[in-house]
Amino acid sequence: MAAGEFELIERIRARCAVRPDVLLGIGDDAALLLPPRRGEVLCVCVDTLNVGVHFPPDTAAFDIGWKALAVNLSDLAAMGARPQWATLSLSLPESNGDFVDALLDGLLTLADSHGVSLVGGDTTRGPLSVCVQALGAVDPQKALRRSGARAGDGIYLSGGIGDAAAGLALCQGRLQTAISEHETYLLERLHRPTPRVALGHELGGIARAAIDISDGLLGDLGHVLRASAVGARIDLDRLPTSQALAAVLPGPAARWPLQLAGGDDYELLLCGPSELMEASAAHTRGELQRIGWIEAESGLRIERAGQPWPGADALRGFDHFAKP
Amino acid sequence: MAAGEFELIERIRARCAVRPDVLLGIGDDAALLLPPRRGEVLCVCVDTLNVGVHFPPDTAAFDIGWKALAVNLSDLAAMGARPQWATLSLSLPESNGDFVDALLDGLLTLADSHGVSLVGGDTTRGPLSVCVQALGAVDPQKALRRSGARAGDGIYLSGGIGDAAAGLALCQGRLQTAISEHETYLLERLHRPTPRVALGHELGGIARAAIDISDGLLGDLGHVLRASAVGARIDLDRLPTSQALAAVLPGPAARWPLQLAGGDDYELLLCGPSELMEASAAHTRGELQRIGWIEAESGLRIERAGQPWPGADALRGFDHFAKP
Repeated sequence: MAAGEFELIERIRARCAVRPDVLLGIGDDAALLLPPRRGEVLCVCVDTLNVGVHFPPDTAAFDIGWKALAVNLSDLAAMGARPQWATLSLSLPESNGDFVDALLDGLLTLADSHGVSLVGGDTTRGPLSVCVQALGAVDPQKALRRSGARAGDGIYLSGGIGDAAAGLALCQGRLQTAISEHETYLLERLHRPTPRVALGHELGGIARAAIDISDGLLGDLGHVLRASAVGARIDLDRLPTSQALAAVLPGPAARWPLQLAGGDDYELLLCGPSELMEASAAHTRGELQRIGWIEAESGLRIERAGQPWPGADALRGFDHFAKP
Repeated sequence: MAAGEFELIERIRARCAVRPDVLLGIGDDAALLLPPRRGEVLCVCVDTLNVGVHFPPDTAAFDIGWKALAVNLSDLAAMGARPQWATLSLSLPESNGDFVDALLDGLLTLADSHGVSLVGGDTTRGPLSVCVQALGAVDPQKALRRSGARAGDGIYLSGGIGDAAAGLALCQGRLQTAISEHETYLLERLHRPTPRVALGHELGGIARAAIDISDGLLGDLGHVLRASAVGARIDLDRLPTSQALAAVLPGPAARWPLQLAGGDDYELLLCGPSELMEASAAHTRGELQRIGWIEAESGLRIERAGQPWPGADALRGFDHFAKP
């Protein structure tokens, strides 16, 4: 089904919920948005998903739309911000109304569930690429920067990691499972990640530093350690592991590479005082799992049963331009 | 010169000027920005430039960077907004530090000249694509929407049009000139458009409607007419024409298709009460040229010497997904 550019824009506009703080949404040269409430500042991020790089060419349009917004809401969550608006810049090899509708189904399902309005964007011709910007608000005193971790802070994860890497391995035939519910779970973790927005917002002012796990635990924790000028010690036996991942890869040593270096889980990594963090964890029904401690000595020490684990050197976070 | 993703981000961060209203810029999960001053609202837009679609593959990196920001500042100008911040999502087929440096030279030269800070973004692998989001502020009472034009308003252009289309024709060998200064001028108009930021801001609250000419005069004026539920009459003899365009295409009838349907000039089209607009034009040293009038009767009437011009039906604005 062919559709012109302006028909596409109208198709998108007609589907978007409009928050009361949107003075002017899709359809003009730019959107007009009411500023955040007193005491808050704007929080802005952008992330692009490209076909063949961030998702396989046969990924469902719904999932592409969902994930393009999810990775941005996850960035806002990692700042402790409340998301409010998003823009979408969509490059398509050809006009395809059905594809756009399905992509919007995914994007808007997630947007609606977080009260986010799509307020602008552009559609253009090019290889399939979805660039989303998310905008939100946060009290700057409570914003979760990467640079606030201190020696003695606990290091916490908001949920199981390694799932998305296992999902990708299933997609690519590098991993098999006979149990379809595990496969479904792991693929959904890959294609429809859950941004931890409520948790990030709740821990604003409690945690001292945060980042979301997009490029892998080691790489992303490394960003926090560098920004905070500290080191850390983590315990492999404490890595939160989903039932599905444990079933598909029963040996812990087989899971660790996925859990340490696999990206795309979009769980939050948070550092903060352990009593306060664990009180929060209890409040959030145990979603937070402590995996280690921030230490003054620089470097990252990965241990199991109190012994250094030698496998870590071979792993690193994902770098789009890493030299082979 | 190869560079890793995080080295690229650091390279970009180190070069960016930071406005005092940037609480946290490049290098965290999201940027933190102070809200606009009292009485103003946020103004947000996004536009992507793709290789082979928006610029030829051999375009200089400086020009790609310049234009990617310029088209967005032009959108803010068309709202009457003051630009403040931008984000950049850059897809590159390979890591190339020299290319990124030159692209940033272009983008940051323009950013600095408008006091705009680059506050965030991402770099990823993919076909060359530059997605910029610009953010600014505007008094909502003075914002220039597309929908405010009224019968009796004059229709004004902020500068010569058709230049960028002639520049593209020169690039593609469809047009020749022996005079290198004309060629230089027209190519610069194509590759380094000037967003009319000061003019748009000055005419906020004076003009009743505005749009920037990105897809061609007919198409973009059409958006204003539809949004405002009005019609218009324009006079071909009043189309502002640069010396270079007049020299390269001396016959007016040869220029009109480029001036009516050629895109990429990024001049402003403004509608408003003629006395007020012309007082402003005098104040801005005659940059505004009236090309016609808004009328109550719907449709667009294109005339020359008071007679309808029959060539208009064959022309239309640029639509990325137009059916052939």
